[in-house]
Order: sequence, then C-alpha cells, then structure tokens
Amino acid sequence: MPKPFNPPPRILLGPGPSNVDARVTRAMTAPVLGYLDPVYLECLNEIQEQLRTVFETRNEATLALAGTGGAGMEACLANLIEDGEEIIVGVNGFFGQRLADLAERWGARVIHVEAEWGQPLDMNKMHEAFRKSGARLIAMVHAETSTGMRQPIEELKSLRDIRDAVTIVDSVTSLGAIPVGSDRNGIDASYSCSQKGIGAPPGLSPVTFSERAMEKIRRRKTAPRSWYLDIQLIHKYWSSERVYHHTSPASMNYALREALAMILEEGLQSRWERHRTNSESFVAGIEAMGLEMLVAPEHRLWTLNTVRIPAGIDDAIVRKRLLEEYNIEIGAGFGALKGKIWRVGLMGSGSTQNNVMLLLAALGRVLEQEGFSV
Amino acid sequence: MPKPFNPPPRILLGPGPSNVDARVTRAMTAPVLGYLDPVYLECLNEIQEQLRTVFETRNEATLALAGTGGAGMEACLANLIEDGEEIIVGVNGFFGQRLADLAERWGARVIHVEAEWGQPLDMNKMHEAFRKSGARLIAMVHAETSTGMRQPIEELKSLRDIRDAVTIVDSVTSLGAIPVGSDRNGIDASYSCSQKGIGAPPGLSPVTFSERAMEKIRRRKTAPRSWYLDIQLIHKYWSSERVYHHTSPASMNYALREALAMILEEGLQSRWERHRTNSESFVAGIEAMGLEMLVAPEHRLWTLNTVRIPAGIDDAIVRKRLLEEYNIEIGAGFGALKGKIWRVGLMGSGSTQNNVMLLLAALGRVLEQEGFSV
Repeated sequence: MPKPFNPPPRILLGPGPSNVDARVTRAMTAPVLGYLDPVYLECLNEIQEQLRTVFETRNEATLALAGTGGAGMEACLANLIEDGEEIIVGVNGFFGQRLADLAERWGARVIHVEAEWGQPLDMNKMHEAFRKSGARLIAMVHAETSTGMRQPIEELKSLRDIRDAVTIVDSVTSLGAIPVGSDRNGIDASYSCSQKGIGAPPGLSPVTFSERAMEKIRRRKTAPRSWYLDIQLIHKYWSSERVYHHTSPASMNYALREALAMILEEGLQSRWERHRTNSESFVAGIEAMGLEMLVAPEHRLWTLNTVRIPAGIDDAIVRKRLLEEYNIEIGAGFGALKGKIWRVGLMGSGSTQNNVMLLLAALGRVLEQEGFSV
Repeated sequence: MPKPFNPPPRILLGPGPSNVDARVTRAMTAPVLGYLDPVYLECLNEIQEQLRTVFETRNEATLALAGTGGAGMEACLANLIEDGEEIIVGVNGFFGQRLADLAERWGARVIHVEAEWGQPLDMNKMHEAFRKSGARLIAMVHAETSTGMRQPIEELKSLRDIRDAVTIVDSVTSLGAIPVGSDRNGIDASYSCSQKGIGAPPGLSPVTFSERAMEKIRRRKTAPRSWYLDIQLIHKYWSSERVYHHTSPASMNYALREALAMILEEGLQSRWERHRTNSESFVAGIEAMGLEMLVAPEHRLWTLNTVRIPAGIDDAIVRKRLLEEYNIEIGAGFGALKGKIWRVGLMGSGSTQNNVMLLLAALGRVLEQEGFSV
C-alpha cells in the first residue's frame, strides 16, 4: 500500500507550474460530467468565450487542447505545415529551437532567423528572410521561457500582409500575464498552457486559430498525420456540431474555467500591471543585491525573470537550499544557459509582492552563506 | 462574471467517464509541484509501478501520457509504424475502425480483418491474414467500447511469435476492470484511459511498451513525426534520466495515483470479480424486463453493457428522460449501431449493486411510460 501523498507546500517560482489558487483547485473537485452532457457543453462554451477575451481575439476556433503547451506547439505546426513547404522560424532560445525542430519533423523546409539567446529577433532580418523566401508560414516565440526575453510582435501584422502568410506565435509564458493582442498583432495561430499566466494546473493548452489559418488548413491536400491534434476534428466537438473526438478532460476544464474567471474579474489591464510591477520590484531587489539580469530592461518578461548566477556560486546548491530550507522552487537555466542563469517565475497567483520579498530575502541569505557578499 | 458552476450529481453509466470516488477527487487537490521536484518524481515512480501491476507486465516503458485514450492510440501507431509498412488491424467496431484509420494516417498499409460489429474477430482469419502478409505489426481492440464486445486475446502470443511481430492492444475499456494480462498474452504495446476502469477523471492515457516494441522503435529509420507522443523522449523523462519533455500534469497524476492505489487495495482479482458480478446482475435484470443484450454472453464486456433498444421506443427520449428525471447518464450507440443500442457503463467506482438496481428501476419506469410493457 502506498504511503499517503502529502506534498510540501512549495512556493513555485520556477518556469511553471505556478501556484494554483484555492478557488481553482476547488473548481476541479466539481463532479465529472459526460462529454455530451448539456451542462458540460455550457462550460466549454464559457471557456471559449473567456479564452477569446484573454487571447484578445474574435477567432471562432479558440479552445483548450487536451494536452500541455507542447501539444499546442505541435498542433499549430502539424495542422499548418504541408510536406515540403517553407517556414520562417525565429530562433533565439530553447523554445524557438524546438519550434524549428518540430517544424522539420512535420515536413517543413525551415528557414532559421537567429539571434543570440536573451536578445530579441531583429524584425528586419525576419522581413528580409520572408521576402527572399516563398514561405507562407512565419513562427516565433513571444515569451521565450528559456531566456526571459519578450519578443516585440507589433510588426508581425505588416510582415504577414506582405504575402498573405499565416503567423504562429508561442504565447506559453505570456498569455494571461503579458498582452498578446492576437487580432491587433496579426497572429493567426497561437498556443499557450494552463499552468503559467493562466494559473490553473498543467495539462491543457489554450489555442486560437484565425479564419486565415483555418482556411489554409481546410485547403490542405492531405489530412495532417496527427489525428489527436487535428484541429478541424477537435473544433467539430467544440463547435455546435459536437461531433465526438476524444473524452474531454472535465476536471482540468473546470480548473481552466475558474482560472479564466479570476483573470476576467481582475481585469486584463490590472493583471498585466500586477505582473509588470512585481517583476520590476524583483529586478530592483536583485540589482540592489549586486546581481544582474540577463535581458535588457525593454525586453524582459514580467513572468519569467532571468538572473545571472554570480561567479563562484554553485547553481545547483543554491536551488537545492532554496527548495529544502525555504520550500521555494526556482528554475535552472538550460541549453546554452545551463549553469549561467536562474529563472524566476512570477506568474498567475504567484506574482505577488510577498513572494518577491520572500524570495529576495531567502536568496540573499543563501548567497551570503555561500560566500557572495550581498 | 460567469455564473457559479455547480454541475448536477450525475450517475455516470455511459461509456465513460465513470464516477470518480471522493478519495480520488481529494487527491487531485494536493499542491501542484514542479516537474523536477523530487517529491513529484517519487509520485511518478509509484504510478509506473502501480500501472505495471494493473497492466500485468514488467515492461520498463510503462507510464501515463499527458492526453486522453486517443492520444494513447496515436502514440502506439505513430511510434511503431514506419512509412509504408504493413499492419494487420482487427475491425469489428468504431474503435477498431479508428485504429485502422489512424494507422493509415501514420503511413501504414493497412490489412483489415473484419467481423460484424458486436462479434469477436475470428483468430483464424487473423492468423491467415498475418501469414499471407509480411506484416510485423498486429493491432486489435480488447474491449470495443462501441459494441460492448470483449475480444479473446489469449492466442495473440502464439500469433505474434510466428514471425517476431509487435502486437498493439486497445485496453481503453478493460484496464482496471477486466484482466488484460499484457505479458501473459504477448501484448507489446497497449494504451488505456484514466476515466473508465481506473476510476480517475479523463485526461491521461496509461500506456505500456514491451522491450520488443521499444527495440522496434529504437531501430526506426526516421523519428516519428509526432514529438508530443514520441515515446522515447517521454520515457527519458519518466526514467531516471529525467530529461525535460513537457510539463507533467501534476493534478491529474495525483488523481491517477490515488485511483490506482484504490485498485491495488481492492485487489485486481476482487475488482474484476466485482465488475463481472454487477454486469451479470444488470444483464439478468434487463432480460427479466424482456430486453435483449447485443453481445453473446461469452463475449460481453463487464464494463460496458450494450442493450438492444426495443422496437417502437425512441432512443433519444429515453436517454433524455433518464438524464433529466433521474440524473442518470447512459450512452447512445454510434456508427452502425446508432439508434439500435444503449451503452451502459458499470466501471470503476460506478460498478455497484446500487447503481444496477437504480438504473433497472428507472429504465423500467421510463420504458413503461413510453409504452413498452416491461
């Protein structure tokens, strides 16, 4: 017989999951309903409307996939790429690289536009690559979880309209915490996750597809190989047709609905402002301690703050001590930034003044004990 | 602001989800942990060991995919099929047909072995098709959710060993309620779901891959297109390597762990026996009312009981009345059996004597009021 499972009350200040509000946890305990129960279908309708508000779009095809953010990335690529077609992919971090790798798996000829990890992509280079190619697909990461960099996406619309292209934007670490502005910015397909800015447990991937994206998908010569992530089939269940595709994950959708309700009650503007303010407080504290941020101020994410690890300090020991002595989780760097940065998430219900103060105090104490003079 | 969400307390006697025990619901409310938290990794280790017991296997690659049962089906096919290779697929229901359709999407040349919906596959025909082909893959459904038919799988091992093939078995509606016997029966890859015999909410897909299956996958010429369901990458996270793939759905895994713990406390034998007994009681009651079962006694599922709709009775009205007047959900037939059968699930914590008595009483009353003389 297994031991009782009573996980410690971690303060989740890593790259996600972020802490889940008790209201959201409680929502998850509502009775599970069948996937065609009229009461359940009403819940799905509400989620679609809530997600449209948070994505800032009127896209009909807006829904939550039954998988994590990675499923959302794959869904966008698997549905939009046809064999051998060109795609421009911005690569300046682990998730940009993953976008490029997955696009290749899904049969695309990938044209990489690169920037240093932690730096934004140069939109002039994107323009140039797009003009020189015949590509009708452009993909980039809005909030690069591996570096803490926020990509300006305001020029995406004019870029896309040069040649009726379809744009794909990774909003995994921005949605619900940093404005995405899907319609305003000319985003045709975007995928996110439930466990960061949204504030629900991990397991769902909110996605939105514009009419332009859906039209490209409808005109495919062959169905995408992936049936589980076939957005036309999934949309037939979420739309009024209600054609069975898979058994909808009820408890997770209850959590998502409640987390989205909390976002709308707080108001998008206030929520963005809260994330900005707490991030800025954290940065001020970090700099006051003599530490440095990886990303330039104007390109920092408010959700995921990347701190350079000072010389002589052991990355793993500091994280282990924070976890074991203070129950605080922060994230390690990875890929090119492994051992060079910490990734500090202040997202969803975890983005609070108290968490900022507590982490600064705990980190300061651990660093002092490890020989860094704060 | 959305209305409070208080779904009615349905008695879920459809094809799944089944009702979730309060212990499992409560487990879901444990604090979410990071995907590399040592306490969380211990939880995943326990799930793997529990799943091995329930699948009756020692397969190392036994884990829960972050998607529903359909993701499990796709994972088996996407990883095991290489372009243009032959696969024998048994088709005698909606999910057998889906297996065949997905195998085709994933590039296989599909050799169908068919039987009438509700009848088991003829293993001699499987043998014959396999011998005549060059196929190294054989796929079939153990518990066909669309018809209520249980496929005998005891001969699979001898069939497989004719030519070192890899077998894929759909255990979506059997695992945790009807013996699957993966190792004993020569099953190399199997996928199930969390919300039927297991008794957790929908959203996860337990899978198991034998060493023979993993070896076939390791020898692939190209990686499967699907990255989200790439079992080698996923297994690298579930194994001691702990390489990041996606953010593990913590709350769902907590629920799965508790549901599996309840199975092991009850004991597999007792649990199977409970499902058998309640199914038989239900059938006795149905036949006493003058109704008929679709499937012959020796091939009936204990989880999903299919009742022929009597002449002159309106399928939809009866289901609607059961739902609205008694809060009882039962399932409609679909595909070739639409309007011809009801699908009555008695699974997980929903397989109880009380549920059997209540449904028989409610159905009897509705049928009488609709003009059928019970």
